[in-house]
Amino acid sequence: MNKSDVRRLLESVKDGRMGIEEASKQIEDLPYKDLGFAKVDNHREIRVGYPEVVYCAGKTVKQVKDTIQFMLTKENNILATRANEEMYQAVKEICPEAGYNSLGRVITIRKREEPLTDSYIAIVAAGTSDLPVVEEAAETASLLGNRVEKIVDVGVAGIHRLFSKMEVIRGAKVVIVVAGMEGALASVIGGLVDKPVIAVPTSVGYGANFGGLAALLSMLNSCAGGVSVVNIDNGFGAAYNASIINKL
Amino acid sequence: MNKSDVRRLLESVKDGRMGIEEASKQIEDLPYKDLGFAKVDNHREIRVGYPEVVYCAGKTVKQVKDTIQFMLTKENNILATRANEEMYQAVKEICPEAGYNSLGRVITIRKREEPLTDSYIAIVAAGTSDLPVVEEAAETASLLGNRVEKIVDVGVAGIHRLFSKMEVIRGAKVVIVVAGMEGALASVIGGLVDKPVIAVPTSVGYGANFGGLAALLSMLNSCAGGVSVVNIDNGFGAAYNASIINKL
Amino acid sequence: MNKSDVRRLLESVKDGRMGIEEASKQIEDLPYKDLGFAKVDNHREIRVGYPEVVYCAGKTVKQVKDTIQFMLTKENNILATRANEEMYQAVKEICPEAGYNSLGRVITIRKREEPLTDSYIAIVAAGTSDLPVVEEAAETASLLGNRVEKIVDVGVAGIHRLFSKMEVIRGAKVVIVVAGMEGALASVIGGLVDKPVIAVPTSVGYGANFGGLAALLSMLNSCAGGVSVVNIDNGFGAAYNASIINKL
Amino acid sequence: MNKSDVRRLLESVKDGRMGIEEASKQIEDLPYKDLGFAKVDNHREIRVGYPEVVYCAGKTVKQVKDTIQFMLTKENNILATRANEEMYQAVKEICPEAGYNSLGRVITIRKREEPLTDSYIAIVAAGTSDLPVVEEAAETASLLGNRVEKIVDVGVAGIHRLFSKMEVIRGAKVVIVVAGMEGALASVIGGLVDKPVIAVPTSVGYGANFGGLAALLSMLNSCAGGVSVVNIDNGFGAAYNASIINKL
Amino acid sequence: MNKSDVRRLLESVKDGRMGIEEASKQIEDLPYKDLGFAKVDNHREIRVGYPEVVYCAGKTVKQVKDTIQFMLTKENNILATRANEEMYQAVKEICPEAGYNSLGRVITIRKREEPLTDSYIAIVAAGTSDLPVVEEAAETASLLGNRVEKIVDVGVAGIHRLFSKMEVIRGAKVVIVVAGMEGALASVIGGLVDKPVIAVPTSVGYGANFGGLAALLSMLNSCAGGVSVVNIDNGFGAAYNASIINKL
Amino acid sequence: MNKSDVRRLLESVKDGRMGIEEASKQIEDLPYKDLGFAKVDNHREIRVGYPEVVYCAGKTVKQVKDTIQFMLTKENNILATRANEEMYQAVKEICPEAGYNSLGRVITIRKREEPLTDSYIAIVAAGTSDLPVVEEAAETASLLGNRVEKIVDVGVAGIHRLFSKMEVIRGAKVVIVVAGMEGALASVIGGLVDKPVIAVPTSVGYGANFGGLAALLSMLNSCAGGVSVVNIDNGFGAAYNASIINKL
Amino acid sequence: MNKSDVRRLLESVKDGRMGIEEASKQIEDLPYKDLGFAKVDNHREIRVGYPEVVYCAGKTVKQVKDTIQFMLTKENNILATRANEEMYQAVKEICPEAGYNSLGRVITIRKREEPLTDSYIAIVAAGTSDLPVVEEAAETASLLGNRVEKIVDVGVAGIHRLFSKMEVIRGAKVVIVVAGMEGALASVIGGLVDKPVIAVPTSVGYGANFGGLAALLSMLNSCAGGVSVVNIDNGFGAAYNASIINKL
Amino acid sequence: MNKSDVRRLLESVKDGRMGIEEASKQIEDLPYKDLGFAKVDNHREIRVGYPEVVYCAGKTVKQVKDTIQFMLTKENNILATRANEEMYQAVKEICPEAGYNSLGRVITIRKREEPLTDSYIAIVAAGTSDLPVVEEAAETASLLGNRVEKIVDVGVAGIHRLFSKMEVIRGAKVVIVVAGMEGALASVIGGLVDKPVIAVPTSVGYGANFGGLAALLSMLNSCAGGVSVVNIDNGFGAAYNASIINKL
Repeated sequence: MNKSDVRRLLESVKDGRMGIEEASKQIEDLPYKDLGFAKVDNHREIRVGYPEVVYCAGKTVKQVKDTIQFMLTKENNILATRANEEMYQAVKEICPEAGYNSLGRVITIRKREEPLTDSYIAIVAAGTSDLPVVEEAAETASLLGNRVEKIVDVGVAGIHRLFSKMEVIRGAKVVIVVAGMEGALASVIGGLVDKPVIAVPTSVGYGANFGGLAALLSMLNSCAGGVSVVNIDNGFGAAYNASIINKL
Repeated sequence: MNKSDVRRLLESVKDGRMGIEEASKQIEDLPYKDLGFAKVDNHREIRVGYPEVVYCAGKTVKQVKDTIQFMLTKENNILATRANEEMYQAVKEICPEAGYNSLGRVITIRKREEPLTDSYIAIVAAGTSDLPVVEEAAETASLLGNRVEKIVDVGVAGIHRLFSKMEVIRGAKVVIVVAGMEGALASVIGGLVDKPVIAVPTSVGYGANFGGLAALLSMLNSCAGGVSVVNIDNGFGAAYNASIINKL
Repeated sequence: MNKSDVRRLLESVKDGRMGIEEASKQIEDLPYKDLGFAKVDNHREIRVGYPEVVYCAGKTVKQVKDTIQFMLTKENNILATRANEEMYQAVKEICPEAGYNSLGRVITIRKREEPLTDSYIAIVAAGTSDLPVVEEAAETASLLGNRVEKIVDVGVAGIHRLFSKMEVIRGAKVVIVVAGMEGALASVIGGLVDKPVIAVPTSVGYGANFGGLAALLSMLNSCAGGVSVVNIDNGFGAAYNASIINKL
Repeated sequence: MNKSDVRRLLESVKDGRMGIEEASKQIEDLPYKDLGFAKVDNHREIRVGYPEVVYCAGKTVKQVKDTIQFMLTKENNILATRANEEMYQAVKEICPEAGYNSLGRVITIRKREEPLTDSYIAIVAAGTSDLPVVEEAAETASLLGNRVEKIVDVGVAGIHRLFSKMEVIRGAKVVIVVAGMEGALASVIGGLVDKPVIAVPTSVGYGANFGGLAALLSMLNSCAGGVSVVNIDNGFGAAYNASIINKL
Repeated sequence: MNKSDVRRLLESVKDGRMGIEEASKQIEDLPYKDLGFAKVDNHREIRVGYPEVVYCAGKTVKQVKDTIQFMLTKENNILATRANEEMYQAVKEICPEAGYNSLGRVITIRKREEPLTDSYIAIVAAGTSDLPVVEEAAETASLLGNRVEKIVDVGVAGIHRLFSKMEVIRGAKVVIVVAGMEGALASVIGGLVDKPVIAVPTSVGYGANFGGLAALLSMLNSCAGGVSVVNIDNGFGAAYNASIINKL
Repeated sequence: MNKSDVRRLLESVKDGRMGIEEASKQIEDLPYKDLGFAKVDNHREIRVGYPEVVYCAGKTVKQVKDTIQFMLTKENNILATRANEEMYQAVKEICPEAGYNSLGRVITIRKREEPLTDSYIAIVAAGTSDLPVVEEAAETASLLGNRVEKIVDVGVAGIHRLFSKMEVIRGAKVVIVVAGMEGALASVIGGLVDKPVIAVPTSVGYGANFGGLAALLSMLNSCAGGVSVVNIDNGFGAAYNASIINKL
Repeated sequence: MNKSDVRRLLESVKDGRMGIEEASKQIEDLPYKDLGFAKVDNHREIRVGYPEVVYCAGKTVKQVKDTIQFMLTKENNILATRANEEMYQAVKEICPEAGYNSLGRVITIRKREEPLTDSYIAIVAAGTSDLPVVEEAAETASLLGNRVEKIVDVGVAGIHRLFSKMEVIRGAKVVIVVAGMEGALASVIGGLVDKPVIAVPTSVGYGANFGGLAALLSMLNSCAGGVSVVNIDNGFGAAYNASIINKL
Repeated sequence: MNKSDVRRLLESVKDGRMGIEEASKQIEDLPYKDLGFAKVDNHREIRVGYPEVVYCAGKTVKQVKDTIQFMLTKENNILATRANEEMYQAVKEICPEAGYNSLGRVITIRKREEPLTDSYIAIVAAGTSDLPVVEEAAETASLLGNRVEKIVDVGVAGIHRLFSKMEVIRGAKVVIVVAGMEGALASVIGGLVDKPVIAVPTSVGYGANFGGLAALLSMLNSCAGGVSVVNIDNGFGAAYNASIINKL
């Protein structure tokens, strides 16, 4: 609502074309509309199609259940990350159609199936130990309406395995690279594709890995262009980010 | 294609069952198609339009000059980052049309002007001290053929300044957020737009900033979706990344 | 007691106006009175109204119970922080009126109800996962006789939620900001109010959060004035500090 | 402007008591007024009496001079921190009455002298090497209109020196403690006063001091209540914070 | 070999100027010979004699069992590191001859006994707490076909114990030094032998040991030549490395 | 045994005054005697009176029991640190007179009572949570034959409590200061006594304490002379060190 | 002055045996005497024989000169550490007999020669690069009246060099070990002597040395008993500490 | 010399077959021979062929010159690392045939040319900025008598460049990998060769590189077997290590 809209509204009031009640309501909405963040509001939380997201770590089973019960009153899909088996069982009681990816620790509730994108997100992982992060990312991307291709166990120690999968990686619109230990896979892929690469360091490893710090620093210092990084083990964040890009 | 496949193919050629054209095509695909990285080669280094990039930090003036002299023999645009005044003077001797952004410490040589994208990259910075990184990013994005909008000095300590610029930020296809100190700007913008946000922590600050570490960790832990991070002060990397996204 | 007081006392002794017993007692008190730390003693530990505080982490159930049993012989209110359910049960046996905030892990024993302050402390938290720290702070502030207003789940990723609560935040005499992850909330609020802001980083988050380090560094580097910081998860310390300011 | 205000305004327009131009203008102002951050705006940057602040580190002499030249067109006092001698000389050219505290690296321009507070801020420092931070804090507090008392060289290695100054420290409304090395002074003072203590770790020291990290961690872990912490060497922040408290 | 080379080759085949055998060989060499990594493939994963390795940490018992079941279909020896008792029991069900070193947490399956090397690897450890790493290294080295000598409990605090074992240490072709705490043993041995020394820091210790960081930094900064370092507790890596050297 | 001793020995052999057996034995002893470290050997491990020490952390109950069973065959006192209740029960089976300090997690077996030193070691601790380290130190010092005085709960937050105990602290020949959190106690005591002060940082605390790192750095940066530091929670090391000094 | 002293004093006043002036003065002295820290005062700063110490780092030449000029009015020896050549020249102007150890960066002014101790302090250093710290320690120890023996370049990489000096090291009453890089020398010596060992990590080294952190951690984790540690490069602190022990 | 050797010697003395002088001399040699470190002595420092090594960092020009002057009296080759131009000029005065590699900052003095090994050491570097470390390694390896092959600018961002050099890398007996930034090259090469790989992290990079820490951690966590690591920028150490292996 810009300056002329306001004028026109006031003229309508003056002319009696619009009642005070209606005008008052429109004006009260202004702060959000004009500042523009109401769109976020609408976009992220209200508009049907975008999932409601619950981060379950550090929450009790009851808290998770109650939150989802409330969400079920709306029409959005629901995504609960870092959810354990017990949480899933509790959710299932109130929503039998809830799905659970035990590896990715993700509960999904699909209230409406969205059409998938034509372009796809490639999720590439160095080793099988990175699978929990891969699955969290894949479930997130999928619920957000993206087509997903997973390529696992193509770590740089056996680089020919990676090359045999380059076709499918190159075909993606955006690539998520998931790797722990030294995280070198992000740099290698960053040098081989000219698509945006979102790197997810994982806490897989031990000793001087320091809970994923080694992979994180490695990815931040990538000598390859086009690589950006999200938090350690943050499969959800990478997929959310990738989804925005995939839908551009 | 294994040994016997090759033999069979050759026998078909010998027998005249397969034409040389067809056989040739199958063989040519072998090394590269299967591995696929030849495209990168073409894409990044050979295809005209992509700039040659020199990272000048830790190089001598002579090394920078020699490298650029060699690059001048090709037809690509040239971008030299982290270049000091002295390096620029040396380059100017061999290439009088070279430009220099002293704030961003970037030398640019435009051998062919590319048409700019319709969509633009917004580069948003918290404070005036972040300008060197902003300029490095802007020069890079521009040389890569992107339209750029710069919005500076909208740090969260005076958040109304940010809101008055939301329109132009929201209009971008991809947003680069440059911030030092506590780097909170990335989270706030990440919550206000639904475009990909590439966060660049800067080393601006002191004490417990630890050379940009505070902003880096802050951005990696952003509670807002859609935010990914590049290395501290890495304006080039953010712009390179943003350019890939902007051209999707 | 200054120089002339001492002289006068000695003259009283010489004149026989004061007995040696009495003078001796006054002189023996000198070191503490003159240095002033007796006041601390009186203030913090003896004066009725100030609670006795037990930090239960790392103590056995028996140690906590014994300590509180001893404290019950005095007239002060009692606050036991970081107390688990089992400790509370043990305390309840010896003091049935003891209260327990299970979220904040705080046992409170109110032996005399203090009148609350007119001004209030606002405790603002980014997310529901920060609630344990919020509750610890709220219980502490309340037992210290402060009126408290809690505002939860106003993290910067949805900044409009924060704005709808600015009225009550601005009305406080001192503001406690509780936030994990990137801790950006402290900077944003610091820029919006001109009251002292005490920031409490929480260990909520994962990966490069490093147990609250990210939020801590973020808050220490806040670009907004008026923000000071206490230890990670230290709701008690923030409230104690806020109480001192609120009662100035 | 609340709901009934809006209604009344609309009725005035309808009744013709208020022109559309005027009403339109009032409505356009809404977003800022209702959200309340316009007050910040007014308060911090527009209201005479609050100084304009320039953080000079990382700025060129010219940038500092230009910024201050612009500020001189307003009526506020001006404070430039982390300013070197050369910057001061440049400022002096355009503002001969500018003052310079070379130890604290602070330029001050007093366009109007504010009455000082009755209560005072005590700035207590462990050693003479902490003086630059003390001076930055003192100049800031003073320009903000606070009475200041400085107590220097009372480090805990000779704790009797501290005790002889306790009277003046206890008399303050708020205490700033400046200490490097192990920063123990903050805990000791925190245990001796019941006023808010703002601790400033300094980078004074060497080796395992790690640029002030030792003092910072020490102060954050203070076993004494009532201690909060600002960034390493941040005398300005401590004073700004103390000023807010002192004026409550 | 470019397009025209291929064409010419095919024409030669068609014309009968080149035999199929010769042409086949030239073509087969294309993908791998030019790139060269096929040898790795053959060497590490296909050639009988090299063990298959499973890193069990972070895997479920079922995952370990399934992986090994698959490996049993090949002819290689199998090594499963970081395997717990439960994993071993599961493996034993499908392969009764599987061995288990409970201290080293290593499952070994020997499908063909390789002849041991003449030269041996000395594995020297500072204390008995380092034994798990020693055993992991010893099992690995042994399965890779190396003769191994273990020398334990020769930490530098009682250096005469080390000297009495120097003969056997000096006799090795390569020396693995395993030490936690301050890791000084690597430097001392590095100064006493002129064989390659591979240092393995262990997480043995507490406090400022920081999970092996102290020993790691110590070993990286060794003042003795000839010392290189692997990850904390990485007995497998040290042995794998030593085996390569021992077989040179 | 110097050159002339050797000559004399050889002459005795030549002259038949000494048998080859005896001479051979004396020569074989040379390496240790001449280098001097045999004394250590004798001193620390063989000479009756010095305890045998077992560090139980990371050992199994059986390993601890077996080690002590072996030690029981010698005449030395035995000290087992970091021992849990279960280990103690196992040891008690083979040595009913074994004592156990459950707070300090120390098993002691006194095979001969040594006379205590006249001078004493003062062990001063900031809080009751530091007691486990205090007890480990006290048991160690006592078994090594030192008189010990414990002064607990004299943290700097209530410094008058410390002053009331200064007499006994000053009377010691060497002072052990045990403190967690910010570890300021070491500096304060270091400034008040002129005896050697051995500081033991403890892991007591949370958040930015980082497992004792805050106290460790604080103590290393102590502004008071005469303070040296041992590892975090290392009560044994402090007492061993203090015992050496106390017996000088 | 205890209770009966006070009574007696008051009785003297009452009886007229002591004037009010005199009694007043004695009472005013009480706080310091009774608390006992006056002794420190007397001991460290007033008693002739103990040097005045100036830490010059971060001070201007003028500040150093002024401080020493003031000190020259007393009768104590003077020690200025971390002093550069320019500072020395300035001091020499006002005190021509001032000495300067350029390697150790120490200015010494001997106003009275103290008799040296019979027992000596051994200062042992790993390499010649550690000499600045050795010299700082040696000058300090010497000025404090200790006999000193320096043993340099006996790093563990050539351990036989150390053994040839064990006699003189064992002869000391207290041993200072100075080492950078991996700092292993402290552990080796700690295992060979049964005297108190004070370890000084130095910042000598590079890379993962992290300014002395590697040696610091190494020494804190020493597996040898009897080793305590001071700050990185803190030769003064080690010598001050050693002097206290040497004079016990 | 073992037990029976000693007996035999004594019998020879008794029988008069060996003179006391000779026997005495043999016995005096015992400590070193039997303990074996005399060999080290001989090997490293005395045996002609092994170079004398001077680490020049932190030394004055005069110290370097004097050290080398002394070394020139022996017959060994001389290697001075981390030497600046000024040091070289000083050395040249006393030894005109001294060579200087300004990039590698290495002075070499060849007093006798050793025959080179048949096998060679491959030194592979990611970028041209790593050249100083490459040169230091190459000069060291060469002076130690090794044939060296340098392969530079084959970083993983353009992995095809690496593949075109695999032949020469695979041909080496031992491979040194030099890389800064994220150090991924070590893992990639480790996966492609089955020779020992010594990884040298370099400090090349900025921001979250933290002076080489990122590359260091990356290399330590390498997912490829056969990789061990030396200190950051330690080209000398890598080459020394590689030389030992190359000569096995």
